[in-house]
Parts: sequence; C-alpha cells; structure tokens
Amino acid sequence: MTITITAFESSPDRGRGLARDMRVRWALEEVGRPYAVELVSFKAMKEPAYLALQPFGQIPVYREGDLTLFETGAIVFHLARHNKGLLPDEPNARARAITWMFAALNTVEPPIIEREQSHYTVGEKPWFPELLAVLDERARARLQQLSDHLGNADWLDGDFSAADLLMVLVLRRIEGDGILEKFPNLCAYVARGEARPAYQRAYAAQRQVFVGRTSARQS
Amino acid sequence: MTITITAFESSPDRGRGLARDMRVRWALEEVGRPYAVELVSFKAMKEPAYLALQPFGQIPVYREGDLTLFETGAIVFHLARHNKGLLPDEPNARARAITWMFAALNTVEPPIIEREQSHYTVGEKPWFPELLAVLDERARARLQQLSDHLGNADWLDGDFSAADLLMVLVLRRIEGDGILEKFPNLCAYVARGEARPAYQRAYAAQRQVFVGRTSARQS
Repeated sequence: MTITITAFESSPDRGRGLARDMRVRWALEEVGRPYAVELVSFKAMKEPAYLALQPFGQIPVYREGDLTLFETGAIVFHLARHNKGLLPDEPNARARAITWMFAALNTVEPPIIEREQSHYTVGEKPWFPELLAVLDERARARLQQLSDHLGNADWLDGDFSAADLLMVLVLRRIEGDGILEKFPNLCAYVARGEARPAYQRAYAAQRQVFVGRTSARQS
Repeated sequence: MTITITAFESSPDRGRGLARDMRVRWALEEVGRPYAVELVSFKAMKEPAYLALQPFGQIPVYREGDLTLFETGAIVFHLARHNKGLLPDEPNARARAITWMFAALNTVEPPIIEREQSHYTVGEKPWFPELLAVLDERARARLQQLSDHLGNADWLDGDFSAADLLMVLVLRRIEGDGILEKFPNLCAYVARGEARPAYQRAYAAQRQVFVGRTSARQS
C-alpha cells in the first residue's frame, strides 16, 4: 500500500532537517518502506481541505490506503507496530521504549519549543533577554536530567528504538545554541543518531526539497 | 499483579485533580483495575532512589511486577493495550485514537502548560501582562482548532477512548481562566468526561489524599 506524507513546500529551516516530516522520513527509512511526498504551502495548510486531514494545520499528514494519521509520535508508533526494527519485541522493554517516546515529546520537547518560539513571538521586546534567561534555564535543567539518565549508554533504554529517533530530533532543535553543547554525552548521542544510514537517507531526501527549490529559483 | 502508582504527598492543586496521577487513576478506574498509591514528598522526588525510577523527578511512577513506567501517555497506553475499554479494536480506529493521545500531549497541552508555568516563573515581572497576552492567544488559537474539530461530536473520534481521557484532563488545567469558556463545545466535552463514573471514583480518591491531610493537621 502506497504511503504518502505531507511536508513543507518551503521549510522555514532551509533544509536543515528540523521540520517534523524528518521524524517520519527517518522512521520509514529505518523500516525500509518507500514513500511519496506531497509538498504543501503555508496557505494550503490552513485551508479546510487540509484541516479536515490535520485539524491543527501542521505537517506531516500520513496516508496509507484508507488510513490518515497525524502527530509524528503516533505515525512513528504506527510504523513501529507494523514493521520490525523500531521497538523491541519483549513486552516490558517495548513498554519502556514507548515511555521514552512520550518522554521525548511531552517532557523534553516542550521547554525546547517554548524557548525557540519565544524568539519569534516576543524576540523584539526589550524584556526578551530576561525571559530568555528563564527559558534557557528550564531547557538546561531538563537536558541535565536527560544527560544524567543517559550517562555513558548509547541509547535511552537498550537498543536503538523509535524513542531515540524522536529524542535525537528533539535535541537537534536546540543544537548550536550553547545549551545542548554543555552536555557532551547528549551531543555524542545526537551524533550517533545522525550517523545511522537511515537518518542520512532521510536527511538527504528532505534537503533535496530545499536544494531543488533554490536551484529552480536561480535558474 | 499489584499495580502501584506514586502521587504527590502534598499536591500543589489542593485536591482539584489537576496532578498527573489523575490520568492514571482515571484509566485504572475505566478498566476496573485496583491499585495502591505511594505518596511522595517533593524532597523525595529529587533524590537518587526516585530519579532511578523517574529521571525527571515527576509523578506518577507506575509499577506492576517487574515493570516500571513513567510518562502518563505511556502508562495510559499500557493500560489500554492490556485491558478492554480504552482503545477501539479496529486497527484504523485504534491508530487514530493513538493519534489523538499524542495530539493531547504534544499539541494541545504544551501551550496550556507554558501559559500556566509563566505565572510561577515570571508572574512578578512588570512585563508579565504583555507576555501573558501572547501566551493567551497561543492557547486560544489551539483551542479554536480543537473546538472546530470536535464540533457537535461527543468525543474526539468515535467512542470515548484514552485520547479523550487525556484531552479532558489537559483542558481541565485551563478551566476557569476565561479561555476554555469561550468554547461551549469544549466545556461540554470536559463535563462529559467528568460525568463518567470512573472519572468520579478517580477524582474522589485523589481528593481524599488532600482532605485526609488537611483534617489530620487540624485535629
């Protein structure tokens, strides 16, 4: 059954692999499933036809036969459930990996996104530096806990799983801001994720959308 | 196998059922599983013994035999997987319900928590009202999308599921602030959740912790 996902026609990250389609692309590459991509404009994402598929007007939407899903956590979980390689089979290990999927999205991501979005929403305010210091400290404290848990392990709980896939991409969003860089074990963890062949194929595919548009505009 | 969860010894919400143990209590009541509660102090939650179970120092931790889980999304999903009544059996309906579980925790909850926490972190700053207006608008816009999706339906997607359980409790956190109240269908949705016998048993049980402590202090 053909799998189709939506992605930004013009990604705000300029092909750096930070948009959420990257999570689904990487998962699809890990399990070796081919997929088609439908690029959508910001305008189209807010129109009724798209909102009927994705009530929050975001990417990606995942379609497979008569099944339509959104929320990257749910899409990655769906792929993990129906394909080998993203979740352990042993029931307790599997439940723990699912715990870490939720931890990536509900505990680690929110302070990172909150900090990131504040730049766009109130970054011009004279009091922004004061707010940013508070948000930096929240993100830092959360990463400290994650770093303490990870220690010298390669992955969050045993072998690489869908939880690591989500967590690595969550952490990538704060790369280069000086906060992640305080935690060498988390940087090495992100690098381990990025070194996976499936990650590299997914990264190249999403980057090609940006490169293709740029060269089309220049030619 | 005995199920034990941790909960606040002294909940900051004063027994209003807003702490995250409520999610697990409600799920356990929906599936008719008895459970024991271990109350933990704020101090104990930050100590190594607790952090070994819950790396982020939060409640609840869920224990069942040799399985230890955290993250309410994962715990509710674990209960849904092994008991009837929280997720549909039909595969596509089930995948969509899981989508809404992630939507509750990764799309709807973050702007609500961000707004709530700003009161504690920067509520005393002279510029707080200006920030709050931005955060109010973000929460309102998200609730608008949710309200548009829900329309006149009773639940998010077909019958009541674990997704509704999570979403109702996420929405309860912003009750009474004048934002949720702009959406009569969301208020009615929350009321439908609160009317369920399992909700009421869970609410009474968590409230008893607060009432018990208060009366013990007064005697």
